[in-house]
Amino acid sequence: MSSLSSQPYKGTRDYYPEDKRIQNYIFDVWGKTAESFGYEEYGSPMLEPLAVYAAKSGQEIANEQTYSFTDRGDREVAIRPEMTPSISRMVAARRQEMAYPARLYSIANFMRYERPQRGREREFWQLNVDIFGVDSVQADAEVISYGDQMLKAFGATSDMYAIRINNRKVIDVVMSDYLGLNVIQSQLMIKLFDRKNKISSEDFRDQAIDIFGEEHAPVGLQKISTLLTVKSFDMLPEQLLENEDVQELKQVFALVEKSGVTNAQFDITLMRGFDYYTGTVFEFFDTHPDNNRSLFGGGRYDGLVGLFGAEPLSAVGFAPGLTTTELFLTSHDLIPELKSSTDVYLVVLGENTLDGANVFARQLRAEGVKAELDITLRKIDKQIRTAIKKNIPFMIFVGKEELESKLYALKDTSSSEEQKLSFERIVSTVKDRRRSAKDDLDDLIDSI
Amino acid sequence: MSSLSSQPYKGTRDYYPEDKRIQNYIFDVWGKTAESFGYEEYGSPMLEPLAVYAAKSGQEIANEQTYSFTDRGDREVAIRPEMTPSISRMVAARRQEMAYPARLYSIANFMRYERPQRGREREFWQLNVDIFGVDSVQADAEVISYGDQMLKAFGATSDMYAIRINNRKVIDVVMSDYLGLNVIQSQLMIKLFDRKNKISSEDFRDQAIDIFGEEHAPVGLQKISTLLTVKSFDMLPEQLLENEDVQELKQVFALVEKSGVTNAQFDITLMRGFDYYTGTVFEFFDTHPDNNRSLFGGGRYDGLVGLFGAEPLSAVGFAPGLTTTELFLTSHDLIPELKSSTDVYLVVLGENTLDGANVFARQLRAEGVKAELDITLRKIDKQIRTAIKKNIPFMIFVGKEELESKLYALKDTSSSEEQKLSFERIVSTVKDRRRSAKDDLDDLIDSI
Repeated sequence: MSSLSSQPYKGTRDYYPEDKRIQNYIFDVWGKTAESFGYEEYGSPMLEPLAVYAAKSGQEIANEQTYSFTDRGDREVAIRPEMTPSISRMVAARRQEMAYPARLYSIANFMRYERPQRGREREFWQLNVDIFGVDSVQADAEVISYGDQMLKAFGATSDMYAIRINNRKVIDVVMSDYLGLNVIQSQLMIKLFDRKNKISSEDFRDQAIDIFGEEHAPVGLQKISTLLTVKSFDMLPEQLLENEDVQELKQVFALVEKSGVTNAQFDITLMRGFDYYTGTVFEFFDTHPDNNRSLFGGGRYDGLVGLFGAEPLSAVGFAPGLTTTELFLTSHDLIPELKSSTDVYLVVLGENTLDGANVFARQLRAEGVKAELDITLRKIDKQIRTAIKKNIPFMIFVGKEELESKLYALKDTSSSEEQKLSFERIVSTVKDRRRSAKDDLDDLIDSI
Repeated sequence: MSSLSSQPYKGTRDYYPEDKRIQNYIFDVWGKTAESFGYEEYGSPMLEPLAVYAAKSGQEIANEQTYSFTDRGDREVAIRPEMTPSISRMVAARRQEMAYPARLYSIANFMRYERPQRGREREFWQLNVDIFGVDSVQADAEVISYGDQMLKAFGATSDMYAIRINNRKVIDVVMSDYLGLNVIQSQLMIKLFDRKNKISSEDFRDQAIDIFGEEHAPVGLQKISTLLTVKSFDMLPEQLLENEDVQELKQVFALVEKSGVTNAQFDITLMRGFDYYTGTVFEFFDTHPDNNRSLFGGGRYDGLVGLFGAEPLSAVGFAPGLTTTELFLTSHDLIPELKSSTDVYLVVLGENTLDGANVFARQLRAEGVKAELDITLRKIDKQIRTAIKKNIPFMIFVGKEELESKLYALKDTSSSEEQKLSFERIVSTVKDRRRSAKDDLDDLIDSI
């Protein structure tokens, strides 16, 4: 039989312990900051009926990007390409019983059939943070300020990213009242704006002309040029200044700024791809010159819960991705040194001591020390090399003499410092190190 | 448009916060106990090439139970139905670079197309714990004793479960030397033994006769009867007593018992379904009369890494499932009371105090308190009801007076006790409660 490939499926990633440490660090900061705002964790199935995405995620995702198939019971299903429809379905199922505002978060994996590239994989992980049941822009502002504080918990400063905010209702007014487009033209123009940074300015121009039609194109293009220069509310065309949706958007800015956010920008060209947004939309952008990309985004989607046969419910949420977060942290040198989860590696000196070393390991574990025992009876230098390769902070040498004297040689793997210590001292030394490493991270998270 | 169903896909489960708390508790004990032995966490993709399972998982899983389909690039893929092939593939890909013994664990979801029933879902979660690179039975014994200690970390005692152990090589000897079966007959008989508890004794008998053939059936059935009475090594048919594989199995028992396990039993009829096992196999069984079922199992599978084009490598592992673990804990009343992850719910007394309450919430979060703010401006009783429904330990009432006096009413949600406290006292009271709840769990885990 020819051998099977050892490579992961195209566009997916294996997480070896050293990669998983970084993933866990990011998940940990996500979870802790979400819980600090009172968001509670939930989970959803990896498969959903395909119809769920056809309804509102947008054509491209449902038709071209889902991993969809027919199951053995003839049901059309899809691996979830995003979380918003799933959590909306879950909330709809308990529409009456749930306590509102419902603040919910999850950390889960998703799949989309896209061309893999830097920052985009076919299987990807996301944090999803949503508030259900708050009509006022207080919720929009909270979610945005949560995003800000979450990045700060990673050690980021305001200059490392920008927060761009817009509103779907304002977009609609711009499309109809200012650009004079009908509903179908508006849809096309929104999609075009959404692709703006992915296509050339010639392509953008040509496609805009197609949407306006020959006759209206000159005036239309002129107006788009004006829009593209808008960097603040007072630069809006006069007819939009007093619009009530613009006023709502201004309120979001006021609240977000009150919560300490200093880098929020009004961006009239920000659309967000999903069809389900109904109000505020926002995106966090990395400002690093080598990694100038959207970090994550979200918005208000008041219509989605109602699609699942329940009374409609207002909702605001957003979803940072693991890969973009990791690229952001790497660009700004914000990933801390992450050691093995194991505290000590027990190097066994000779076959006769293996039983004793086993007992010793159990005693350490009973005191909360994470102790890995070398059970291979290999030469000592090989055992030591294993501990170093695994990036375990300490080694303990366990031989006949050590077991009898009850004094053990504890070696710091990185400094090579060695001390002869009693069992109690070993436990306290190892736990002190772990506590101080953990405190560094906790301080970062608490300091938001 | 007719509305979409709010029910999850058949055989899968939604985890609302109160369900997710139990899931997280189990994941937490799994992770902490695995790390206490020095296992490090990894992750693998949810899709693998279908061929991976066709090779060694066994016909039934690959052909009848996988969620397999052809992707948009014409590749035959499957949602992982188990972890062992994935981690074997990952180890094979880094066969040369990895440090051995490699102790690895993961907590992940899987799918199999089976008829959903109590204790069995189409999407299910498992802990997978594996050691690679140890030829000796030290590894077999460690994994079994880890399973024992993991259950004890949940608060279980030895009488609540039994550990049944066998060996694939011993099984082969029994099939060939004792029952006189050829290779094909042996395969069929192993599958039949594996189904023994799922079919009637008449069916078992009839199928056994088919395998032996008319002529050999009488003697064969007699020998099977003898086998079924074997409860210890000395009850084995004499010709097996001195067999070297039986000796290896005895060594496993000796080591397991040295590590403090008191409930290990030799079970010559234990087979384990997967084709890839090559040595020790074992299963943990719940002894509760209402939940008499297999909890989880595992074994040695030395051949799997080699299938992925790498030099062969010995491996031992096992995989407890979330659902069976939860049923076990429920049967034995071992699930602790689990509150919301949120510490305090801020009840806002009047619109004018919302800004001040927002500032107050941020101050609490900066001190590590998980504080949820009611931003709805609803009547106070509705806000209180939300806090109670969410099972949040404390409420704080934030009004104009409180913000001015800097004394806040902290109410214990379950006892309804109320105290007027300063900011500092609130922080310490809330954190003390969380610490003591967490310590209860940590003590349980450390006491293994």
